[in-house]
Amino acid sequence: MGVKVYGPPMSTCTARVISTLEEMGAEYEVVPIDFEAGEHKQPPHLARNPFGQVPAFEDGDLMLFESRAIARYVARKYKSSGPDLLREGNLQESAMVDLWLEVESQQYNPAIAPIVYQCLVIPMRGGVADQKLIDANVEKLGKVLDVYEDHLSKTKYLAGDFFSLADLSHLPYTHYFMATPYASLFESRPHVQAWWQDLSSRPAVRKTAAAMPTSR
Amino acid sequence: MGVKVYGPPMSTCTARVISTLEEMGAEYEVVPIDFEAGEHKQPPHLARNPFGQVPAFEDGDLMLFESRAIARYVARKYKSSGPDLLREGNLQESAMVDLWLEVESQQYNPAIAPIVYQCLVIPMRGGVADQKLIDANVEKLGKVLDVYEDHLSKTKYLAGDFFSLADLSHLPYTHYFMATPYASLFESRPHVQAWWQDLSSRPAVRKTAAAMPTSR
Repeated sequence: MGVKVYGPPMSTCTARVISTLEEMGAEYEVVPIDFEAGEHKQPPHLARNPFGQVPAFEDGDLMLFESRAIARYVARKYKSSGPDLLREGNLQESAMVDLWLEVESQQYNPAIAPIVYQCLVIPMRGGVADQKLIDANVEKLGKVLDVYEDHLSKTKYLAGDFFSLADLSHLPYTHYFMATPYASLFESRPHVQAWWQDLSSRPAVRKTAAAMPTSR
Repeated sequence: MGVKVYGPPMSTCTARVISTLEEMGAEYEVVPIDFEAGEHKQPPHLARNPFGQVPAFEDGDLMLFESRAIARYVARKYKSSGPDLLREGNLQESAMVDLWLEVESQQYNPAIAPIVYQCLVIPMRGGVADQKLIDANVEKLGKVLDVYEDHLSKTKYLAGDFFSLADLSHLPYTHYFMATPYASLFESRPHVQAWWQDLSSRPAVRKTAAAMPTSR
């Protein structure tokens, strides 16, 4: 029996889980959640994720939420069938994977998420983007990417010269960011750009991204 | 040779690392960073942490940053000398530890951190707290703690009936939060309160907290 992912494949956090399942060659089923009907705030979904968010994840009796935790679980469960995304057999390598997973979560995501939200989500809903907020976060993201550029001039991937969950975890927001007017932040940083080209051309990533439209 | 932690023991993220070292019975040295002199933004510290933040961590040739990643490394490196904080030998248990580590990072921290900052840090610097911001985050934290209260009525600790890094990672902000006027958010939730009493009475936690003054 395959595992189940509850959430829309176009949601960033759901895509984080789906891309990991794809990398590991796992069988899975996506169960849609109807946001417009408020299904994520109703008891059946709250029993899966008490914070009323997506995704939730089901593997037999085990129910999980929080996309970064689910992705770790998937990487561990299927480690014999795909790339070694966590490197838990090596103390130093696993520390670098954890470090760059945290950088994604604590430095990259807080800067890139508001830009994507303002540039893509708000206009899709008929609203007007807050340009001051965009500008502040473009400046913040630029500083984060300066650190990435320097780092990626020394190693091919974030945690070292091996592809890991730390790279993959950057997929969802970066995919959408590339459809904003600020994609040049990547183009002007050759090592960051080469890293993204490499990441976004992986078959598992392409398949995940195909279900993430950047316009309606 | 022991490891080195760069950062002030009273900083929340530095305390996350120190409390983990204490739990594991590790030998370590704390190297102070002079924030008022801007030492964290100068080249020697930027070589340790390119984001110019604390803590940084040194173990021989290995240099790490991001407190949650360092704490994982410490838990793994010293696992034979202290409690099993990550449960990596068990697929289900490690998933629950990861899940609640992510809840701390993505749900708890974003609500509690601004309250601590507004109630303790700003007045310490002679500023005036933003009451609207406090009120919004007190409401947000209350909802998060409702989920904790329900969850902790079923298991003694966050990841199950065993103490883990997920519990410990809540120490730094909760310690300071208890010195704000909003500590009643815990008192009114008996399971959350009992969990905090248990956590805060651990010898490693008491020792770490002793270096975290709540007033000047």
